[in-house]
Amino acid sequence: MEGKNSVGVAVIGTGRIGQLHIENITSFIPEAELMAIADVNPSSIEHVAKKFAIPTVSTDYLQLLDRSDIEAVVVCSSTDTHAQIIQDSAQAGKHIFCEKPIDLDLERIDQTLKIVDITGVKLQIGFQRRFDVNFRHLKDLLLKDQVGQLHLLRITSRDPAPPPIDYIKLSGGIFLDMMIHDFDMARFITESEVVKVYASGAVLVDPNIGSVGDIDTAVVTLEFANGAIGSIDNSRQAVYGYDQRVEVLGSNGMLQAENDQKHTVAISKTDKIQRSSPPFFFLERYRMAYVDEIKSFIDSIQNDRIPLVTGEDGRAPVVIGLAAQHSLTEKRPVYLTEIENMKSVS
Amino acid sequence: MEGKNSVGVAVIGTGRIGQLHIENITSFIPEAELMAIADVNPSSIEHVAKKFAIPTVSTDYLQLLDRSDIEAVVVCSSTDTHAQIIQDSAQAGKHIFCEKPIDLDLERIDQTLKIVDITGVKLQIGFQRRFDVNFRHLKDLLLKDQVGQLHLLRITSRDPAPPPIDYIKLSGGIFLDMMIHDFDMARFITESEVVKVYASGAVLVDPNIGSVGDIDTAVVTLEFANGAIGSIDNSRQAVYGYDQRVEVLGSNGMLQAENDQKHTVAISKTDKIQRSSPPFFFLERYRMAYVDEIKSFIDSIQNDRIPLVTGEDGRAPVVIGLAAQHSLTEKRPVYLTEIENMKSVS
Amino acid sequence: MEGKNSVGVAVIGTGRIGQLHIENITSFIPEAELMAIADVNPSSIEHVAKKFAIPTVSTDYLQLLDRSDIEAVVVCSSTDTHAQIIQDSAQAGKHIFCEKPIDLDLERIDQTLKIVDITGVKLQIGFQRRFDVNFRHLKDLLLKDQVGQLHLLRITSRDPAPPPIDYIKLSGGIFLDMMIHDFDMARFITESEVVKVYASGAVLVDPNIGSVGDIDTAVVTLEFANGAIGSIDNSRQAVYGYDQRVEVLGSNGMLQAENDQKHTVAISKTDKIQRSSPPFFFLERYRMAYVDEIKSFIDSIQNDRIPLVTGEDGRAPVVIGLAAQHSLTEKRPVYLTEIENMKSVS
Amino acid sequence: MEGKNSVGVAVIGTGRIGQLHIENITSFIPEAELMAIADVNPSSIEHVAKKFAIPTVSTDYLQLLDRSDIEAVVVCSSTDTHAQIIQDSAQAGKHIFCEKPIDLDLERIDQTLKIVDITGVKLQIGFQRRFDVNFRHLKDLLLKDQVGQLHLLRITSRDPAPPPIDYIKLSGGIFLDMMIHDFDMARFITESEVVKVYASGAVLVDPNIGSVGDIDTAVVTLEFANGAIGSIDNSRQAVYGYDQRVEVLGSNGMLQAENDQKHTVAISKTDKIQRSSPPFFFLERYRMAYVDEIKSFIDSIQNDRIPLVTGEDGRAPVVIGLAAQHSLTEKRPVYLTEIENMKSVS
Repeated sequence: MEGKNSVGVAVIGTGRIGQLHIENITSFIPEAELMAIADVNPSSIEHVAKKFAIPTVSTDYLQLLDRSDIEAVVVCSSTDTHAQIIQDSAQAGKHIFCEKPIDLDLERIDQTLKIVDITGVKLQIGFQRRFDVNFRHLKDLLLKDQVGQLHLLRITSRDPAPPPIDYIKLSGGIFLDMMIHDFDMARFITESEVVKVYASGAVLVDPNIGSVGDIDTAVVTLEFANGAIGSIDNSRQAVYGYDQRVEVLGSNGMLQAENDQKHTVAISKTDKIQRSSPPFFFLERYRMAYVDEIKSFIDSIQNDRIPLVTGEDGRAPVVIGLAAQHSLTEKRPVYLTEIENMKSVS
Repeated sequence: MEGKNSVGVAVIGTGRIGQLHIENITSFIPEAELMAIADVNPSSIEHVAKKFAIPTVSTDYLQLLDRSDIEAVVVCSSTDTHAQIIQDSAQAGKHIFCEKPIDLDLERIDQTLKIVDITGVKLQIGFQRRFDVNFRHLKDLLLKDQVGQLHLLRITSRDPAPPPIDYIKLSGGIFLDMMIHDFDMARFITESEVVKVYASGAVLVDPNIGSVGDIDTAVVTLEFANGAIGSIDNSRQAVYGYDQRVEVLGSNGMLQAENDQKHTVAISKTDKIQRSSPPFFFLERYRMAYVDEIKSFIDSIQNDRIPLVTGEDGRAPVVIGLAAQHSLTEKRPVYLTEIENMKSVS
Repeated sequence: MEGKNSVGVAVIGTGRIGQLHIENITSFIPEAELMAIADVNPSSIEHVAKKFAIPTVSTDYLQLLDRSDIEAVVVCSSTDTHAQIIQDSAQAGKHIFCEKPIDLDLERIDQTLKIVDITGVKLQIGFQRRFDVNFRHLKDLLLKDQVGQLHLLRITSRDPAPPPIDYIKLSGGIFLDMMIHDFDMARFITESEVVKVYASGAVLVDPNIGSVGDIDTAVVTLEFANGAIGSIDNSRQAVYGYDQRVEVLGSNGMLQAENDQKHTVAISKTDKIQRSSPPFFFLERYRMAYVDEIKSFIDSIQNDRIPLVTGEDGRAPVVIGLAAQHSLTEKRPVYLTEIENMKSVS
Repeated sequence: MEGKNSVGVAVIGTGRIGQLHIENITSFIPEAELMAIADVNPSSIEHVAKKFAIPTVSTDYLQLLDRSDIEAVVVCSSTDTHAQIIQDSAQAGKHIFCEKPIDLDLERIDQTLKIVDITGVKLQIGFQRRFDVNFRHLKDLLLKDQVGQLHLLRITSRDPAPPPIDYIKLSGGIFLDMMIHDFDMARFITESEVVKVYASGAVLVDPNIGSVGDIDTAVVTLEFANGAIGSIDNSRQAVYGYDQRVEVLGSNGMLQAENDQKHTVAISKTDKIQRSSPPFFFLERYRMAYVDEIKSFIDSIQNDRIPLVTGEDGRAPVVIGLAAQHSLTEKRPVYLTEIENMKSVS
């Protein structure tokens, strides 16, 4: 490891996604050095620290913010703590990588982003799909003007199986928990802002999801500032595996990012040819994307450049998600300006 | 030709689609015998009659309805004449195959279907896509319960290039001219009625289309009586060729009907692998579907069974199309009952 | 039918392939008029004549050769009669389309081709695969120099199931019955002559095939005059359906003609994605190729041009097949000149 | 790193492949600890040691064999040194992972394997393709009897571009340098020994390859003890990228392992659909296979089991390669027993 230039990092929150980042930083990212981890739960943290030979552990992330050898934090704690940790870290002069979403409350997001802005630290939001090799390649082709002006965008995003009901209850709903990734993808691909959304939803996978006030199947139409129209579909259950596709129709052609497959073997039998289903879930599909987003974050610190997913990129999909929720409730299309205005009124 | 059992047929209207049916009947359908053709335009009809050795031609279809050797008519004239010709043919006791749509006016459709009902003749509407081998196979797999309960339906339907502006002007608009096929496909696949639609549209392909009051790019969300959600996208211009795909997500799997390809040859070059684009347009893609729909119609006469695309199947997509138009104009989701009620009020 | 210019045709031999040509000529090829059919077996011929409304039937093809309204014959009788019928037809001034092979005896082939040559009639051999849309497109790309100089050729050709043992017994062996099509394809694709072959064979599908002295699985290496190397594999049993693929590696790229599929529907289930297997057998895969070869034959008569599959094209694959047989027996590579020399010696 | 159980490893030879193993061991294989590296060239070794923080470097591998903290060696030096290093390492009681081939001389291989056998150390040969996810999956399906008895095997193996002529000169020829991997794959897939080979070769890519006595294009037919027939094609130049495919026809179906693709994005343009070409070369295609083979080697030490690629697996493809060379020279099929007998005679 070339210690001299490496960035000292602390990971805050050591649940599933925190451990993934810990493993990635220690195995794949020589440019970063993992100095410490923090988690409010002292029991799990010992195991993780031992497994990855991390020198410092703490149940209070504030202790880590005092250390001069820690330049950056990776925030993987529960959503309700994100805004506070970002604010504290920014005021301590630490660069911040934070899992999505920043918060579910727009005013709180704005207050947080203002502090980040004042302190001048870097903030990158964990929309890892932007780093997926397929979506990145699709975007590259768009930038190289391979299909001309954008007319239609279709995003399919389906989980292999719904999460536990306890998770659903606290998730903020399908639009802010699941489709928020697709709202980000829509902005990433089109480089245009969403103006209006119409959401249609249903409880088809599991009635328990309905009984806690959420839906499990949704189609959302997006109208963009550049005139293009988008359509996103989400399902909490695609039994064939994690389904993540993007399709763009342009004036000169079409781009389609298809699912990966686990292997390339085809079996030809009497009446069919079988191929591999896609990788099971996001940890498989986006394995390298999780590595590359942190690499990119570290690089933005080392080379003092703007992160590839900014605080504004973290805020915008929340606005779209709130608009989709509003549309579903009110059974009508909703302009994003309505959501912004609600905030200013409240 | 086994003349004894064959069904005597007259084709009314000898434009592009009429000539296609004439060629199909004479080449591929020994169960039908083409006795006569009619067209208001006497000049073109001579050439067609000669080419296909058709004994009788007329500029007045009413003359043909008197003949006892003509059991059925195939109506390919302009849309505004469909209702009248259906009514006249039914009252003359002729079975009727009619190109879509029956009419663009719901009251006129209902009046026409009532006469068909009273006379007891068979009426089949020309939604040929139901006879496409791919869509038929997809439907078969649904009926065999290969993917369980239906959750999501996605239909992509894009033309290679827009028609002339003069055609657009008289077309009835994208929903009643183009997406009407997809509304029929949606009903065919789901076997459930559409309850509510939301239409989003734009003029992105050609501003002239906008200047005659139509749109060229559209996304429509459908909510079905069985709870499923559908999404259809249409574009007047997919430069890579005619794009006709259907995707169904069910509780136990997914079905996707992909485009045909012109040939199976792949070229691997330095930085890419190239394959064939889809067949250019509907005459290529649905070549055999056009044959099979007439075969099925003739068979319904010979075996006295209900046609596979009924008058009601011809009416329903018009209602959906009117609802979509209304949704686009009013910028809100529209229930199909609203369209039915408008009619009864008017 | 535009009778004036159409070519009067007689079909000799009304077995499976004869009936196929009869149906194709009457349904799809207005440029030809089927005047008569002949078959040594009087019982089957009546049924066929009735079904397709053919005016003249005969049990003696010589009777048909006298008629001036018959310009061409399509020879579909058993292989041992081909040479005689070609000779008789040529001497009667009739153009000849003959199913492969001309004969299994080289001297007899040469004698026959000499007569054809002297009489100046046109002779086309029934290698229908040259008219397959996929192989034709691959050849077109080669001619357009899309992949540069040819280095490697791979042909896979597998039947879905072996024919009855009685057929195998009289077939001439796998190389002259089955792989002969691939030898023709190799010459068609490369436009170069085979110089040397090495054959490896086994009885793996059915021991009965071995007990009548044939093999059911074979791999043959071909060395071409232009320096390229080819490899053909044959199996009498591919349970997934008729497998017909061609692959060409050139100095600037690769071309692959893949199998057709019955439909484009993909089913995604828990652990796999299923697609359609290829069409069952040659009647399905080459349906249009059988039409197009006769169309092309008729056109060669109408426009007085050399047929696309000449007598020499019918002879060359027999030589290759005899060399492959010899190689298998002698367990060594065999030069084609050895086969030619054997003939001149005998 | 869980140091207690990890296996101390030295890498001997720090060229391209040596550095690859060094990087993989330090980044991906916590079960192994890289203690030292050796290379006869002192200049390059410093840089590598620094980059990966390796404590010990040496220009004499014998020095490393004395150390008790080194349990295993990874041999990546030039082919002519393999046998000696294996012998020395075995006698020092070190487990050995050795790049292919063990040697090009059969007697020397046998002498070496005898010493390994006597000393009881583990020896694994670097046929990394056995660990490729696609080929492994194909093999798994065979073992699960998904396609029944094996009839035909086709292996395509083509490099994107030929190596420098200086490399070719010392390579041992295409059969022992390049196709040796395919001979191993053939044995791995079929689990049957090759009995006879026939080699056909040509110089089509670069005349300079011919001028140093080698060929650049080859097709080899294999006959297996179990009756199956195989065909391998090699080319030193596939401009579309590294082409590595395996196809198996069995009595109940077919298995095909296709190339990976760099990404899943398809571009549909006016007259074609483009997809990604395969990964450029073996370092890309077999990136994880290189990791997994070392993981498996380390595991064989930790759990005291037979390595997945044994010394005998290293010897057998050399015999096949020698037979192929002999076949090409003698222009006839060669039995492997001939090669074995030559050895005993010499």
